[in-house]
Amino acid sequence: MVSAEASLQALSIRLPQAPTPFGAYVEVVQSGNLLFLSGMLPVENQKPKFVGRIGEELGGAAGREAARMAALNALAVAKAYLGSLDRVTRVVRLGIYIATSGDFFDQPKVADGASELFKDVFGTDKMSTRLVIGVASLPMGMPIELEVILETNP
Amino acid sequence: MVSAEASLQALSIRLPQAPTPFGAYVEVVQSGNLLFLSGMLPVENQKPKFVGRIGEELGGAAGREAARMAALNALAVAKAYLGSLDRVTRVVRLGIYIATSGDFFDQPKVADGASELFKDVFGTDKMSTRLVIGVASLPMGMPIELEVILETNP
Amino acid sequence: MVSAEASLQALSIRLPQAPTPFGAYVEVVQSGNLLFLSGMLPVENQKPKFVGRIGEELGGAAGREAARMAALNALAVAKAYLGSLDRVTRVVRLGIYIATSGDFFDQPKVADGASELFKDVFGTDKMSTRLVIGVASLPMGMPIELEVILETNP
Repeated sequence: MVSAEASLQALSIRLPQAPTPFGAYVEVVQSGNLLFLSGMLPVENQKPKFVGRIGEELGGAAGREAARMAALNALAVAKAYLGSLDRVTRVVRLGIYIATSGDFFDQPKVADGASELFKDVFGTDKMSTRLVIGVASLPMGMPIELEVILETNP
Repeated sequence: MVSAEASLQALSIRLPQAPTPFGAYVEVVQSGNLLFLSGMLPVENQKPKFVGRIGEELGGAAGREAARMAALNALAVAKAYLGSLDRVTRVVRLGIYIATSGDFFDQPKVADGASELFKDVFGTDKMSTRLVIGVASLPMGMPIELEVILETNP
Repeated sequence: MVSAEASLQALSIRLPQAPTPFGAYVEVVQSGNLLFLSGMLPVENQKPKFVGRIGEELGGAAGREAARMAALNALAVAKAYLGSLDRVTRVVRLGIYIATSGDFFDQPKVADGASELFKDVFGTDKMSTRLVIGVASLPMGMPIELEVILETNP
């Protein structure tokens, strides 16, 4: 079994400050063994780090990077709540919403920016299901939003 | 602990008639302690009460009102199924889909129309995670659709 | 109780080959009694069988057919994982994402292509909740993507 905390160290990944809510909601809800996260965005210090649609103002490479940043925020939120990412027993679902003009069809490669980070940190045994959806717009014009459901030990 | 039923009374909120399905599905499925609702729309007596996209045919204020109406429908559906909203132990997830032209970026304020109603009724201890997504279109041209997952006592 | 396997036989439905992932994810994750599937697309032998937006390049009838094909893929994935669809005790959630131009409002009829197949196979006692969302684009230009959560016996 891969230790997520050991992976972070081995990969020299420093988690960012966990983002905090923009409204009347919380970043994490645990119900039984399932941990539901709020939509994770490519923000840094509560500010959008990427703005624009993929295939229009931003290219696929920026989209991948934005997806990775949103995934790092998800890890930061989960760690702040759980104490240690080693409590995660499975990544259950990763939903990747990508703001596009409607003519961009290479969403899976953009989505890999998030999926591959999760795979590198949690290992292939804990790989998630995935949904990839191209949407009209996301909060504050950001290009990526992640839906994350984790499973934890009790 | 806040009593949702007492909150409804204190706030003089009268729940609408619970909406019924437009097709081969049901409005609620319970699995373990999780209660999954179908997509909740701003309908009244099974008819769309708001039609149009936010940032185009409709403004942000109408969007907030539509989000609140969809949230009231969610409460009506949950109450019809559970008997009492006091059986809700947590609002696990609130997904807010907003039909936009793609140039409207103030989705969080629109989403607050739903989030704040839930907070007022269930209290801050039961606040949900949240996903806000701007989409191309929603059933029958409505501007808002809610995804709701609740946790209940056994 | 309806037997899903008997229904498949009675309806002469032959399930396709289960699709396999396009990236760093898996098609199914079980957590407790819940079975989460990856986004199911109208692919055949890993190739898109329908490409285009509903209401633009494709009409409603093609949309229904694409939704049914994605639903068949979901059944194939669930069966490959569970051994038998008779282990499904409930269809918890069916999310139907439809790529549209934004001017197509007849999403529920397209969605019925998936909902009705599930109802025919699992019976009305196991009918799901449903979310129907019109989106800008889906992977490789396909018109339909399904989100599926099932409940299984232990």
